[in-house]
Amino acid sequence: MEKEISQAVIRRMPRYYRYLGELIDAGVERISSSDLSSRMNVTASQIRQDLNNFGGFGQQGYGYNVKHLYEEIGKILGLGEQHAIIIIGAGNLGQALANYTDFGKFGFVITALFDVNPDLKGKKVRGIEIHMLEELDAFTKHHKVDIAALTLPKSKADTIANHLVELGISAIWNFAHVDLDLADKNVIVESVHLSDSLMQLSYNIAKDKRALHGWKSSLS
Amino acid sequence: MEKEISQAVIRRMPRYYRYLGELIDAGVERISSSDLSSRMNVTASQIRQDLNNFGGFGQQGYGYNVKHLYEEIGKILGLGEQHAIIIIGAGNLGQALANYTDFGKFGFVITALFDVNPDLKGKKVRGIEIHMLEELDAFTKHHKVDIAALTLPKSKADTIANHLVELGISAIWNFAHVDLDLADKNVIVESVHLSDSLMQLSYNIAKDKRALHGWKSSLS
Repeated sequence: MEKEISQAVIRRMPRYYRYLGELIDAGVERISSSDLSSRMNVTASQIRQDLNNFGGFGQQGYGYNVKHLYEEIGKILGLGEQHAIIIIGAGNLGQALANYTDFGKFGFVITALFDVNPDLKGKKVRGIEIHMLEELDAFTKHHKVDIAALTLPKSKADTIANHLVELGISAIWNFAHVDLDLADKNVIVESVHLSDSLMQLSYNIAKDKRALHGWKSSLS
Repeated sequence: MEKEISQAVIRRMPRYYRYLGELIDAGVERISSSDLSSRMNVTASQIRQDLNNFGGFGQQGYGYNVKHLYEEIGKILGLGEQHAIIIIGAGNLGQALANYTDFGKFGFVITALFDVNPDLKGKKVRGIEIHMLEELDAFTKHHKVDIAALTLPKSKADTIANHLVELGISAIWNFAHVDLDLADKNVIVESVHLSDSLMQLSYNIAKDKRALHGWKSSLS
């Protein structure tokens, strides 16, 4: 049984992976945890703790072998094998995802988009066909789908997500502005809530203003 | 001086806000922390701890007044006032953000998009004009800009972000697949790294597979 690792650690792993990829591109072969930490703005002990969850990978007095660590983190993140993704909702956001070539580098292959708008039927985004939603069931019978991305209005998200699960899809990348209410609690869901992210930004703006305001009042 | 509150807490606040908004829409006037917790899949003590960072808001034996708590969290998140947003990069993702009407409800108003593609010049997305990037400096002289959203390739992100800061913009909502390297460390940056999110999803898929594999081997 794999040890349960906190989502905060998991959230940092793709960032380590990204940085290590940049180091490889820059020709760096090894790095100390303190160098990695100053680049990433995370403490060295945090890095060591995070990586120790998966068995370490560092050597005392040597640091980390960049390529080895990159590959090991890639394995942890499940990037060794291809994931087929379908996108439900071929509006701007769905099309933006389909156009994102970076995903392919990590083994995520977008195989189809689906929409209810008949104007989009048969059109292609970067060579990927937009199907009508009523073709979804047939499509999933003939093609393996590992992940469904939901880029559709929140009012339709729960119904379609539960239907996707019935079709055997067990991982959902949710962009609808709602926490999905799924009958099957074993489904893996990762949500990107754009409004939440914007609110975190505005929290930090408001905090800075409050700090400035407090500073001014203390002068007066 | 405002107490430093962890980003993990800040990340949960928009979610509380979203749920409380749904409760208000459903006509709910008060709620216990245990009811709120079971709806949100967070422990009741976590909710109490989170809210205690900002002074509490609950009453023993009564719970939370939904509307009051919603308003207070809104204030904490800086949603009381309007934020003007410009979008740098009017591709699919930029246009998707411009089309997102939900942001307006929370006081985030998108006032302009900018791009380098001359085909887009003067076009409008939901009534919002796409300007050429060379008009950016003049635009910021005549219009207040609180937040710039970067929906452009990562190769251009640092240069443009630093230029935006020189123009007086102090908050950046970054969608480029890179952690911005800004000369001014006081700039507020919130990044949405779509690849990172996809990797968290695939981590959880890989973890489930490892668990299943381990389970099978223990049977054989």
